[in-house]
Amino acid sequence: MTNLPRKELFHLPEGVIYLDGNSLGPLPKGATERMQQVMTAEWGQELIRAWNTADWMALPAKVGDRIGRLIGAPAGSVATGDTLSIKVYQALAAALKMRPDRRVILSDAGNFPSDLYMAQGLIGTIDKGYELRTPAPEDVAEAITDEVAVVMLTQVDYRSGRMHDMKAITERAHAAGAVMVWDLAHSAGAVPVDVTASGTEFAVGCSYKYLNGGPGAPAFIYARPDIVESIEPALSGWLGHAAPFAMEPGYRPAMSTERMRVGTPPILQLAALDAALDVWEGVDMADLRAASVALCERFITEVEARCPMLTLASPRDGTQRGSQVSFAFKDGYAAVQALADRGVIGDFRAPDIMRFGFTPLYIDEADVIAAVDVMEEILRDEIWREAKYQVRSRVT
Amino acid sequence: MTNLPRKELFHLPEGVIYLDGNSLGPLPKGATERMQQVMTAEWGQELIRAWNTADWMALPAKVGDRIGRLIGAPAGSVATGDTLSIKVYQALAAALKMRPDRRVILSDAGNFPSDLYMAQGLIGTIDKGYELRTPAPEDVAEAITDEVAVVMLTQVDYRSGRMHDMKAITERAHAAGAVMVWDLAHSAGAVPVDVTASGTEFAVGCSYKYLNGGPGAPAFIYARPDIVESIEPALSGWLGHAAPFAMEPGYRPAMSTERMRVGTPPILQLAALDAALDVWEGVDMADLRAASVALCERFITEVEARCPMLTLASPRDGTQRGSQVSFAFKDGYAAVQALADRGVIGDFRAPDIMRFGFTPLYIDEADVIAAVDVMEEILRDEIWREAKYQVRSRVT
Repeated sequence: MTNLPRKELFHLPEGVIYLDGNSLGPLPKGATERMQQVMTAEWGQELIRAWNTADWMALPAKVGDRIGRLIGAPAGSVATGDTLSIKVYQALAAALKMRPDRRVILSDAGNFPSDLYMAQGLIGTIDKGYELRTPAPEDVAEAITDEVAVVMLTQVDYRSGRMHDMKAITERAHAAGAVMVWDLAHSAGAVPVDVTASGTEFAVGCSYKYLNGGPGAPAFIYARPDIVESIEPALSGWLGHAAPFAMEPGYRPAMSTERMRVGTPPILQLAALDAALDVWEGVDMADLRAASVALCERFITEVEARCPMLTLASPRDGTQRGSQVSFAFKDGYAAVQALADRGVIGDFRAPDIMRFGFTPLYIDEADVIAAVDVMEEILRDEIWREAKYQVRSRVT
Repeated sequence: MTNLPRKELFHLPEGVIYLDGNSLGPLPKGATERMQQVMTAEWGQELIRAWNTADWMALPAKVGDRIGRLIGAPAGSVATGDTLSIKVYQALAAALKMRPDRRVILSDAGNFPSDLYMAQGLIGTIDKGYELRTPAPEDVAEAITDEVAVVMLTQVDYRSGRMHDMKAITERAHAAGAVMVWDLAHSAGAVPVDVTASGTEFAVGCSYKYLNGGPGAPAFIYARPDIVESIEPALSGWLGHAAPFAMEPGYRPAMSTERMRVGTPPILQLAALDAALDVWEGVDMADLRAASVALCERFITEVEARCPMLTLASPRDGTQRGSQVSFAFKDGYAAVQALADRGVIGDFRAPDIMRFGFTPLYIDEADVIAAVDVMEEILRDEIWREAKYQVRSRVT
């Protein structure tokens, strides 16, 4: 049984209930110390030698293996670096090469926009009549026909928290001869994931949400071990080369998932992420999931009883939902600002979604009750109408 | 007149003469403090709000403008993020779109391998018969024919330090109707660069060498302001969208160089880089260049007088050379290890190049003399023959 929460491992500001770990996880205490070490003792003292003496060269793979443990990926099958958008592009480009006679990329209308944008950019770059189809999430399974080269879906919808059935959709994709790409941005560290059991060819994700790697933390990509050696990398950078320091004129991909690496790894961000992953030691994902579902259920019950002007925008059935709960409210933007002003941090997603992430590593039932106390007050007294909460800033 | 060196701004380990700032710049003292601030006060206390309250959203553009000042790029014309290899891909893909009737990417055999690999990956992705040509560096100008869609060159050769004439080659490319892409990896912060005067469409570079941004620091890309609005981004991520947070289903590029951004920016690395750029305040690049040439000349003179077994592998003429000096030596790998063991850090590049970077920000003439003292001893007494110096590690 996992001991939860583990608040003592995080820097959590006083007076704040943080329900936005699905956007940016809080600072793990170990990350600060580790960064100090990397900067002064490694970069500062060892300089260029730290690639060897501090084993910076091995850090991307080490971090990949640690993430792999949380998503059911075997050692050596997860590469880290770049941003999630880049990893989406790599997976899509590789998948299209695997189905040269097909011209459809199938996603859904609920996917995170950047995933769709990257597909659009790839289609424009190849310029051979590829088509991106985005049916409603509930219509995806039916839309998987034998025209489809690749099915690219985000498992947990960033707005509603609605969760696709990875195994069922992957099976359907394979039955239709399509390649599968899963985006685990809102899954890794949030719900139990087993990429191996799903049979998916590719999975990608980011590490600054539930994995608490810090702002702009590196992304990851899983490639199924049996196909790795046949992948043709579109972004064929030197760190994906079989022998990066041989400085050969021709690209020759590494015979492992390392071929999905591109350029020089972001060591400072990787070190922060590596330290952040320490908080997962001894965490059983089934325990975490049970705690997450309980927190979400409690939140829904409390909000529906005390804030009748909000409409649940997430699936009511916990098995269909990730680790977040969303409510629709016309003035959601202002309400989210008013909440933050009182220490309850959630976020807003256009056009009208108030989104709250529940992360059992550092959130408990008392936090849920306290958060709803504040919500009730803001909504009942219409505090969100104050002029200062109407001003839109760039990011929420 | 710029005061040089500025050793007091850097953490320089005792007993080390660091001639490898062309591979990884040393730690600027201000970067440690800044990182502490970003982690504890911004990420730790502000959490997600820091995107606004600490203005993380503006950091990529701010850093881009600061780099722009060092390469002659106007404010707003340099985007930062990703790795240099990704930026090469973006520039190449955009350039090919600008010349749809041409099928040749022209580079040179001395280019950094990753640049060539990325071109190969792009060619494979588009799969329409594109060809990468890599003549010898001295034959590039002649090879610019009207078949060439894009000329992609690294200004300063990573091995020899040989420097292309940016303005002359760009003019030649334009006369032939080709688009120009310059890689400034070994130029930015090393030699005076004026991308505006050169007329180049694109320039890319990294920031962990002469700009001292730290291991894996973000890359940059310049796009000539008059063409920005017509660029079709291949890597069309949400941060390059005109309205990233509107979450529109279709990609609509920002009407600025911001369209060359892709995913969520690496805030920790950007903050370290931003602090590192402080050391450039008040530095006149002409003064820096004069100091660099003087250091290199002195090094060549001393080495040739005292280490006759080494053969100069860089241009003798300072105007043809970047801020590094390379010598060929059959047992260069071992010699570089023996040097490092005695505190003189240079690096080795296959097959036989001993490479030394001269960075007037923190290297002075006394360092040059002291370094050659050690070199003379190692080579005269054949200390490099010791068994421990023969073992090859992964990175040098």
